[in-house]
Amino acid sequence: MSLTPYTIEPIGFVRSKLTRPEAAPMQGDEGAPEAWLELTPLAAPGRMGITAGDELIVLTWLHLAQRDVLQVHPRGDHSRPLRGVFSTRSQDRPNPVGLHRVSVLEVMEKKLRVAPLEAIDGTPIVDIKPVLLRSDPSER
Amino acid sequence: MSLTPYTIEPIGFVRSKLTRPEAAPMQGDEGAPEAWLELTPLAAPGRMGITAGDELIVLTWLHLAQRDVLQVHPRGDHSRPLRGVFSTRSQDRPNPVGLHRVSVLEVMEKKLRVAPLEAIDGTPIVDIKPVLLRSDPSER
Repeated sequence: MSLTPYTIEPIGFVRSKLTRPEAAPMQGDEGAPEAWLELTPLAAPGRMGITAGDELIVLTWLHLAQRDVLQVHPRGDHSRPLRGVFSTRSQDRPNPVGLHRVSVLEVMEKKLRVAPLEAIDGTPIVDIKPVLLRSDPSER
Repeated sequence: MSLTPYTIEPIGFVRSKLTRPEAAPMQGDEGAPEAWLELTPLAAPGRMGITAGDELIVLTWLHLAQRDVLQVHPRGDHSRPLRGVFSTRSQDRPNPVGLHRVSVLEVMEKKLRVAPLEAIDGTPIVDIKPVLLRSDPSER
């Protein structure tokens, strides 16, 4: 893919007791632990307004993923037919951005404690967004 | 932010009748039209398994956004107090990745017709993921 590239600057990193990818659950609701989102000093002012109890979508850069994979057996199960990665949540995909829905447990100056989060320790954070409340458009 | 950079290679581009950012709705459910997701030849095999009727999350790179903004007045309304961008859906943020929930209307070899999509024509596509059905973990 030789198109113009776009560069992500991490706004922070995941700090978690999960350190080995093979020990991480495939989705947050499959037994993932709590974790800290540690923001860089430059990005930290962007967390103003986030409070404990908020529901967030965390976007990560799955830095251990293989980027040259376009088709996979879902959940690594070879008895299941090959599918395009865009119809699965495989980590392996051209731009390995992970989406994680979490609850905020605690807010400190430069970090947020959240759960559940299946990303491993050291995973770069791309963005943090509020979950949209469809019933209340003013809060978007 | 001087950390190691990560590079996005667009998997495709949005083709839409929306061409002016100021005419685009702020969210897909605020009157956004249908659009085509035109995949690059290299990325196109990744769409295998996507069919009309599927619900997808499209990740875009909001290429017109300002990346040096960390606090905003929500929805550009200066009567509302400043908030950190990570507690809003502002386009302006360090890594301007847009999240769009869409329905698939039609699938062709290298493109998908979807709705609603508030991204303007020419917006780079970062990734496409299925909406997770919490009631059916096997379909993730």
